[in-house]
Amino acid sequence: MNKRLNIGIIGAGRIGKVHAESLAFRIPEAHPAMITDVNIEAARDAAERFGIPLVAADAAAILADATIDAVLICSSTNTHADLIVDAARAGKHIFCEKPVDHGLERIDKALEAVQAAGVKLQIGFNRRFDTNFARARAAVASGEIGTPQMIHIISRDPAPPPASYVKVSGGMFLDMTIHDFDMARFLIGDEVEEIYTAAGVMVDPAIGAEGDVDTAVITLRFRNGVIGTIDNSRKAVYGYDQRVEVFGSAGSIATANRYANQAVLSTVESIHQDLPMNFFMDRYTDSFVSELRCFVQAVLEDKPTPVAGIDGRIPVVMALAARKSYDERRPVRLEEIGTLAHA
Amino acid sequence: MNKRLNIGIIGAGRIGKVHAESLAFRIPEAHPAMITDVNIEAARDAAERFGIPLVAADAAAILADATIDAVLICSSTNTHADLIVDAARAGKHIFCEKPVDHGLERIDKALEAVQAAGVKLQIGFNRRFDTNFARARAAVASGEIGTPQMIHIISRDPAPPPASYVKVSGGMFLDMTIHDFDMARFLIGDEVEEIYTAAGVMVDPAIGAEGDVDTAVITLRFRNGVIGTIDNSRKAVYGYDQRVEVFGSAGSIATANRYANQAVLSTVESIHQDLPMNFFMDRYTDSFVSELRCFVQAVLEDKPTPVAGIDGRIPVVMALAARKSYDERRPVRLEEIGTLAHA
Amino acid sequence: MNKRLNIGIIGAGRIGKVHAESLAFRIPEAHPAMITDVNIEAARDAAERFGIPLVAADAAAILADATIDAVLICSSTNTHADLIVDAARAGKHIFCEKPVDHGLERIDKALEAVQAAGVKLQIGFNRRFDTNFARARAAVASGEIGTPQMIHIISRDPAPPPASYVKVSGGMFLDMTIHDFDMARFLIGDEVEEIYTAAGVMVDPAIGAEGDVDTAVITLRFRNGVIGTIDNSRKAVYGYDQRVEVFGSAGSIATANRYANQAVLSTVESIHQDLPMNFFMDRYTDSFVSELRCFVQAVLEDKPTPVAGIDGRIPVVMALAARKSYDERRPVRLEEIGTLAHA
Amino acid sequence: MNKRLNIGIIGAGRIGKVHAESLAFRIPEAHPAMITDVNIEAARDAAERFGIPLVAADAAAILADATIDAVLICSSTNTHADLIVDAARAGKHIFCEKPVDHGLERIDKALEAVQAAGVKLQIGFNRRFDTNFARARAAVASGEIGTPQMIHIISRDPAPPPASYVKVSGGMFLDMTIHDFDMARFLIGDEVEEIYTAAGVMVDPAIGAEGDVDTAVITLRFRNGVIGTIDNSRKAVYGYDQRVEVFGSAGSIATANRYANQAVLSTVESIHQDLPMNFFMDRYTDSFVSELRCFVQAVLEDKPTPVAGIDGRIPVVMALAARKSYDERRPVRLEEIGTLAHA
Repeated sequence: MNKRLNIGIIGAGRIGKVHAESLAFRIPEAHPAMITDVNIEAARDAAERFGIPLVAADAAAILADATIDAVLICSSTNTHADLIVDAARAGKHIFCEKPVDHGLERIDKALEAVQAAGVKLQIGFNRRFDTNFARARAAVASGEIGTPQMIHIISRDPAPPPASYVKVSGGMFLDMTIHDFDMARFLIGDEVEEIYTAAGVMVDPAIGAEGDVDTAVITLRFRNGVIGTIDNSRKAVYGYDQRVEVFGSAGSIATANRYANQAVLSTVESIHQDLPMNFFMDRYTDSFVSELRCFVQAVLEDKPTPVAGIDGRIPVVMALAARKSYDERRPVRLEEIGTLAHA
Repeated sequence: MNKRLNIGIIGAGRIGKVHAESLAFRIPEAHPAMITDVNIEAARDAAERFGIPLVAADAAAILADATIDAVLICSSTNTHADLIVDAARAGKHIFCEKPVDHGLERIDKALEAVQAAGVKLQIGFNRRFDTNFARARAAVASGEIGTPQMIHIISRDPAPPPASYVKVSGGMFLDMTIHDFDMARFLIGDEVEEIYTAAGVMVDPAIGAEGDVDTAVITLRFRNGVIGTIDNSRKAVYGYDQRVEVFGSAGSIATANRYANQAVLSTVESIHQDLPMNFFMDRYTDSFVSELRCFVQAVLEDKPTPVAGIDGRIPVVMALAARKSYDERRPVRLEEIGTLAHA
Repeated sequence: MNKRLNIGIIGAGRIGKVHAESLAFRIPEAHPAMITDVNIEAARDAAERFGIPLVAADAAAILADATIDAVLICSSTNTHADLIVDAARAGKHIFCEKPVDHGLERIDKALEAVQAAGVKLQIGFNRRFDTNFARARAAVASGEIGTPQMIHIISRDPAPPPASYVKVSGGMFLDMTIHDFDMARFLIGDEVEEIYTAAGVMVDPAIGAEGDVDTAVITLRFRNGVIGTIDNSRKAVYGYDQRVEVFGSAGSIATANRYANQAVLSTVESIHQDLPMNFFMDRYTDSFVSELRCFVQAVLEDKPTPVAGIDGRIPVVMALAARKSYDERRPVRLEEIGTLAHA
Repeated sequence: MNKRLNIGIIGAGRIGKVHAESLAFRIPEAHPAMITDVNIEAARDAAERFGIPLVAADAAAILADATIDAVLICSSTNTHADLIVDAARAGKHIFCEKPVDHGLERIDKALEAVQAAGVKLQIGFNRRFDTNFARARAAVASGEIGTPQMIHIISRDPAPPPASYVKVSGGMFLDMTIHDFDMARFLIGDEVEEIYTAAGVMVDPAIGAEGDVDTAVITLRFRNGVIGTIDNSRKAVYGYDQRVEVFGSAGSIATANRYANQAVLSTVESIHQDLPMNFFMDRYTDSFVSELRCFVQAVLEDKPTPVAGIDGRIPVVMALAARKSYDERRPVRLEEIGTLAHA
C-alpha cells in the first residue's frame, strides 16, 4: 500500500469538516486534495484548517481532476443521487453520506451508475464502526449469544431539530431512524420483512404540523424469525441515548451509553453520574475515522467496501414501510414498498 | 389495630406455602388459621411447618368456619372464579392469585359476587410491591420523569415450563405476560387501548405443538398516547430477566436485575459478575410478603386493596387481545375483546 | 437431624431481638425457649412477639434450665466473658456477640472454660455470612484470583454513635474495626503480623474528647506477604459503605454496596441512583440468620463452628495493636501485644 | 492568539511521537518545527509521519534555532535536568516529561535556571488532564464532597517492565508511583507531610534482584489531616487499573476504569464485560493532547503553566521518602528528605 489515495470532499458543512479532519490528520494513506462547497467561504475555511490545497464552489471541479481517486459526498441529501451518478461516470470511487436519497427510483439510478462504472461505493453508516455496536455484532456473528431471537434498539436524540430542518428531512424515519434500520440489519445479519409502527408527536407540535412524528416504537420481523424493536425520540433531556440489546438462545449482549468520565459522586441526596456524551459528534467521533479508514483501505486494496450501495437502499425501503405502517395503522411488508435488491 | 386477622389458605402448593410462611412468621397482624388442599398430605405438611392449627381437603371447611375472616385462593386457576363467588357469599375477604380466570364471563361473575357481598378482593400481582418496580412507579407518579411517553418491559423466564403445564396454562399471554400487562398499567397509571403482537416459537417446539408461543414482542398504545413494548421469552439462559424502563419528557427511570451478590471478578479473560437471581421465588421474595401485608392492612383498616378486582380483569382482556393480534397479524383494540369495566 | 435445639437468649436488646426472630421464624431446627434481660420488660416484649415461652431477668435462669441446649449471649460487652465461663460450666453451647471482651486475659479465661467444658463456641462475626463477602472469600479460596497480594476493606458507618456510647465502646478499633480485622483474616485466610495506623478525629470532636478517633486508614501486613488496608469512617453521609477488594496474581474480586432498588433515574441534571441500604440491620439482615443457622447445625451435627473462639480473640489483639500504632505513630507487630493463640 | 508556537521536540521515542502527532494534527496553534534524537533514523521517521520540516541528532540544534519558541523534552530521564538548564539559558519555554530527575540537587539546579531565565516550564503529569481525574478534582475543589478526609489511589500496570529497564528506572516509586504522588497532591490540593510504605516483590523476582519492589501500599498523611493510600502493582492481569476515590464530609467521588466498549454479555456462565483499556497509550490518549494544548496556551497567553516546576520536584521528594520508609520500615516525614520548596 505505498500509494496515497487522493480524495475530493464535496460539501464543507459539519460532516464534511469531520471527514476532512480525519483525512488530514488521522488516515496517513489518504490525502484531502480538494474541497468544494456552494458556499465557497466554508470550503476555503476548511481548506486552510486542514491543509487542503484546492478549493472550488462546484463539485464538478473534483470530478474533472484526473489526480483525484475518490470523492466524499457530504452535501445535502437531495444532491446525493446525482453526484453519485456523476462521480461514477467520472470513474471516482465514492463515499456517500446517508441517506442516498428519499426516493427508490433515484437510488436505483445511482446504484446502477456505480455498477456500470465498476467503482466502489460506501454509504456513511458510521455507527457500524462504533466499538459498542461492533462488539454487539461480534457477539451475534461469533455465536456467543447463540441464535438471535430478539433485538432492541434505543436511539434518542438530545433535542429535536428546528421545524425548518424537519420540513426537508424526509421525516424522522428517513432522517433519524434510517441509522437504526441499518443497525438492525447489521446486528442481525438478515433482512426485515415486515414493519409495524406505533408513533406520535410528543416532543414538539411544530414537528406534527409538518406532518412528521417525533416519537416512535417500530416493530421489526426478520426473515429468520427474529423480532425487534426500535425506540426513537427526538428529545431525551439527559442526552444522546444510544443502546442496543440482542437476545439469543445462548445469552444476550447489551450496550450502554458512553460517558465522558466514569466518576460516581455519592452525596446525602443520591448517587450521581454525569450525563452521557451529548451528541453524535462526541459519541461517534472515532467511528467517523474508522469508516473512512475502511473506505480508503477498500479502495487501495481493491476489496469490497464494508457498507455497500444496497445497504444504502434497503433502509430507505424500511423507512418508507415504517411510514406506510404509521399512516395505515397496520403491519406493512417490505415487499409492498419494493424489492430489497435493486433492479 | 389490636385484632389479628384469621386467614384460611386454599391450596398448599408452591405459592400457598409462600403465603403461609409470610402469615406465620412475617405478618404479626395475621394468623393462618386453616389450610386446605385436595392433596391433604400437602396441607398437613404445610400446617406442621407453619404452625397452622386446622387442615382440610375441601376449601368449604374454611368458608364454613365463622372465625375465619379472609381467604387466600392459591389453588389452580380453573378453581379461582368459583371460589371467589363462594368466598364472597360466605362473607370472607379474598386474596386471589393471578389470573382470576381465563374467561371474562367467569371473571365478571366473580367480581359481581364480590361487589354484591361487599367483601374486599385483592389480586396477587406481587410485582407491584417489588422495590424496583415500586421505585419506577414512584418516578412516574411523582413527575420525576415528566410526562411519560414510552415504556419497555422485559420479562424473560429462565426456563420454559413443561408442555403438560403449557396445555392448561391458557397460553403464554394469560400465564406469563399477564404480569407484564399489569405492570404496564401500574407503571403508566392509564389503560392500554390497542395491542399489536409479534410472536413465535423459538425456545421449544413442544410449546408450538400446543398452539402456544414462547417468545413475543407486544406493542401497547395507551389512551394517553404512551407507546410501550413487552418483551417475553420463556428462556433466558442467564436467568430471570426482569427490567422496566419508562421514558418521559423530563427523563427516564430504568431498573436493573437483582443479584444475590454485588461482586465483580476481573481476570485475564474478562470482567465477570455472577448471574442474576434465578427465578421468582428468589427475586420476588419480599414482594410476596408486602402484598399480603397490604391486604391484611386493607382489611383491618377497611381501606381499598391496592390491587382491586378490576385489576384482575383488565390484564385478561389484554391477554386475549394480544392473542387475537397474534392470530390475525394486526393491531387489535381492546374494545374488540370487551369493555375495561365489568358490567 | 430430628432434634430441635432449645436455645436461651441472654439480652433482649437490638441484636437479641434479631436473633430471637430468626430462631422463631426462620430456623425450624431451633426453638427459642427462654429470653432474659436485666430489663425484664424488654424480655417480656420480645417473648410475646416471638412466641418464647419463658422469661427471666437473670441469665442464670437459662443456665439452670436443663432443657436448654445452647445460649446466645447478646448482652453488653462487659458481661460476655463471665457469661461464657458460666455457660460453659453449665454445659451449654455458646453463641457470643463480638467482641468477646476488651481484655485478652478475660478472653483467655473464657476460651479456657469453653475448652475445659468441651462445649461449642461461635463468635458473632456475621459479615462472613454476607453473600458479597462470602463470594469474595470463595474467589480467594478457589484460586480464581490466584495468589492474593493486596486487600482493601472499606467500612464506613452512616453516622457516629453518641459520645456516651463511645465512652464504653472500647474505642473505634475494638468496636467498629473489629469486624474489619475479622474480615481481613477471613478473606485472606492467614494472619496479620504487623499493623500501622493513620487516624484522626474528623467527624465529631466529642469523639476526640473521649480519646477516641473516628477516621482511620490501617495498613496490614500478613504473614504470607499480603498487604492490606482498612478504611474506616464513623460518618459517610451517603449511607453505609461496606466494600472489599482482593487483588491477586490472577485477578481481583471487588464487591459493591447493596441497594434496596436497582433503579437508575436519568434527568437533565445527572444520572441518579438511590442511596445504598442505610445500616447493618438492613444490609446484613440475611447474614444474621445464616450465622445462627450455621451455629445450630454445628451443634446438632457436632461439627466445628464456622467462627471459633480464637476468631474472637485475634481481632482484639489486632485492635490493641492498631491503637498502639496510633499512639506511638509507628508500625506495631502483633506479637508486641500477645500471641495469636490462647494459652 | 494569531501567532503559532514553533516547537522543537527532543526525543523521538514513544512519548516524543505522541506529542509530535498532537502538535501536527490536533493543536492548530502550535507547529512542530524540529525533532531530534540521538537515533537520527527515529527522528527522520517521526518527521516524515508528522510533517516536521527539520531533523537533527543533537538537541543543541533546536536550542540554536532562533525561530523555535519552545521545546518538549522527551529524551531519557538522565538528560532532563541538563536539557532544562540549556533550554532555559537559550530562552526557550519548556515542557519536560516526568520525572525531572532522580536527584533533588539536579532538579533544583534546573528549576533555578528556569527561574533565572524567566521561561515557562510544565511537567508532563498528563493524568491531571484525564477527564476522570479532572472530574474528581472538580468535586473536591467545588466542595461537592465537603472537606476531604481520605483519598485512595489505585494504580496498577498491566505488566512489569523488563529488568533492564528497572535497573535504570530509579525504582518503582520514582518511575511509576511518581504519577500517583502527583495525583494525590493534585486531588487534595495540599501537601503530604508523612509517608509510610508497605511493599514487596510479588510479581517478578528479577525486579527484587535489582533491589526494587513491584507491589506497594503507601500511606500518606497530608498537612490538612487528610489520610490517603496509594496501591501499586506492576502487574494486573486484567489490564491497566487506574482509579481514585476521595471521601469527604459531604460525600465521595470515585472513578472507574475506562473501557473500549460498554457492552455486557450475559451467558449461562456469567455476566461478562471486556477488559479495560490496556495501557496508558490507550487510556490516556486525550490527556496527552490536553496537557500540551494547555502548555501552548500558557506560553501564547503568557499565563502560568498548569503543572509548574515545583510540581516536578515534590513528587521526587515523596518517592525518596517512600523508599526510605520501605528501607527503614517506619513512617518518614518529607522534611527528612528535603524541603518542599526549592532553594
